[in-house]
Amino acid sequence: MPLGRRPRIVAIGGGTGLSTLLRGLKAYPADITAIVTVSDDGGSSGRLRGQLGVPPPGDVRNCLVALAEAEPLMQQLFQYRFPSGSELEGHSLGNLLLAALTQLTGDFEQAVALCSGVLKIRGQVLPATRDPVVLGAVLDDGTVVRGETAVTACGPRARRLFLEPPDPEPLPQALEALEQADAVVMGPGSLYTSVIPPLLVPGVRRHLCQGRHLRIYVCNLMTQPGETDGYTASRHVEVLFDQLEARMVDVAVVNSQLPRPGVLARYREQGAEPVLPDLERLRAMKVRVVKRRLLDRGAWVRHHPGLLARVVMGIIDPAYLRPTPLTPDARGQ
Amino acid sequence: MPLGRRPRIVAIGGGTGLSTLLRGLKAYPADITAIVTVSDDGGSSGRLRGQLGVPPPGDVRNCLVALAEAEPLMQQLFQYRFPSGSELEGHSLGNLLLAALTQLTGDFEQAVALCSGVLKIRGQVLPATRDPVVLGAVLDDGTVVRGETAVTACGPRARRLFLEPPDPEPLPQALEALEQADAVVMGPGSLYTSVIPPLLVPGVRRHLCQGRHLRIYVCNLMTQPGETDGYTASRHVEVLFDQLEARMVDVAVVNSQLPRPGVLARYREQGAEPVLPDLERLRAMKVRVVKRRLLDRGAWVRHHPGLLARVVMGIIDPAYLRPTPLTPDARGQ
Repeated sequence: MPLGRRPRIVAIGGGTGLSTLLRGLKAYPADITAIVTVSDDGGSSGRLRGQLGVPPPGDVRNCLVALAEAEPLMQQLFQYRFPSGSELEGHSLGNLLLAALTQLTGDFEQAVALCSGVLKIRGQVLPATRDPVVLGAVLDDGTVVRGETAVTACGPRARRLFLEPPDPEPLPQALEALEQADAVVMGPGSLYTSVIPPLLVPGVRRHLCQGRHLRIYVCNLMTQPGETDGYTASRHVEVLFDQLEARMVDVAVVNSQLPRPGVLARYREQGAEPVLPDLERLRAMKVRVVKRRLLDRGAWVRHHPGLLARVVMGIIDPAYLRPTPLTPDARGQ
Repeated sequence: MPLGRRPRIVAIGGGTGLSTLLRGLKAYPADITAIVTVSDDGGSSGRLRGQLGVPPPGDVRNCLVALAEAEPLMQQLFQYRFPSGSELEGHSLGNLLLAALTQLTGDFEQAVALCSGVLKIRGQVLPATRDPVVLGAVLDDGTVVRGETAVTACGPRARRLFLEPPDPEPLPQALEALEQADAVVMGPGSLYTSVIPPLLVPGVRRHLCQGRHLRIYVCNLMTQPGETDGYTASRHVEVLFDQLEARMVDVAVVNSQLPRPGVLARYREQGAEPVLPDLERLRAMKVRVVKRRLLDRGAWVRHHPGLLARVVMGIIDPAYLRPTPLTPDARGQ
């Protein structure tokens, strides 16, 4: 049933997946809020977190750029990475900017808001919590591991994910966005380290589970070695249900298209396989399934931003299902 | 004789001195161009220069902030220095921004122009040359030293300063500004390492010496250990004449005020003394002298931006000599 107005969409996650979705959604007349994971502890983000005590800025930075409407140079600047061989190796300028603004204002949210202004973003990007959090997992054998990097390596054995501290404070703006949302989109993105962590913030989880919005899960295209080996689409959803202790997915978006053989072979060498769309099992879980060809061209197996956004918009409001010309931006990149 | 219009002023130099002057001039209705030294090889600037091959951005950064009219947070951000103990120790965010923009656009001038826009600066800031230059000196005994840091240590023994390469290309905008200038202000600032280097760029030197503008030299307040030990005001001007092989100062602005005893004692411990205003000798050199009380309050011996700017403006156009209320900004900080 058409909404008859701009839909209000909350997208939750992190990494490349969330930015891909946002880049596609940006082309539509929608009110977008991204709630972004801040438990990263690797790379430039992890170094800034460790050395300056600021929240890891990388996932937020990617979302800001994905929603940016500022001139391309400003976006390139934000994503600029200092070259190897320098003491700044691997740091992106956007991360340094967010770190410096956090130190100056004493407040990561404000730093993100200021950068949102400079980048003229469409919508808002919010960290899932203002507290410094560490992601951890209790494994099947009772072992406890801490840190996103460690959790990535033992996904299938993770009995229970947790945040430390266990009750980080959510942002009021995030809860408000969830309350008013027509739809909440989770994923695509690393299941254990991008999608689930922001959902573990108690207020976010509660609002997600209790809200009257449509809850959409965009399933990953490929399994991730160490994290989701052998997972089918339904297994992804099952893990979400288990970890969140709630049936918090109404619709699952799955991909029906196989990557090109050359690309697939490269992924297989790394131990990654296409996520199988086991529709029967998803339906048995009472999850509505939307299966589409969603692949972008290129050397990587990625969602096509425009195709993904159109499918998501069509689920939220069938009025968007009628064919519309894609803008260059929605066509990817 | 009053000009009857906004004066066009070119300020040449680097370091704290030039930014102090610009901060004061900003409060006046004048067209300001700063031509800034780019031979720095120490600190954050030197590290970026060495590791990324970009011009040293520090002096330019200080001038941009001095002329900025953007909100204070943007200025603080530009001047933000990463804390010690991190791998980013000592780098200022403005330097990193200029370095990243230079790498992205392939052009330092364009990087400076882009930052000028973001900081909403009044006037323009131009590097003295677009070429990478090294400052060197031939000493009295024939020894040759290279690098700003080395030259600082042996000022009085420097027979001849030079740039390597010897013919760096000046910026057309800098030459144009010099051609149209009503006045060129040199200093205050380190004589051998801030004031003279941009004047060694052949095109700049020629336009400075041949132009019909008034040439004003603002003499330093204190001698600099290693660089100008024992120098009087006239000795500063003499060195300029010698190094530039031209009598290129029409007016010298000297300070008549002694620092407070406690402050002076601290400077003396470091080997710095007040620069003596030896007016007779300056007049014998046919340099007009303007002697005023120019000190700012505080723990450092610095020019008061508002007082210095008013003196300079009064020299350029007597219309500015009538008392006007100082804006808070012109009062310093």
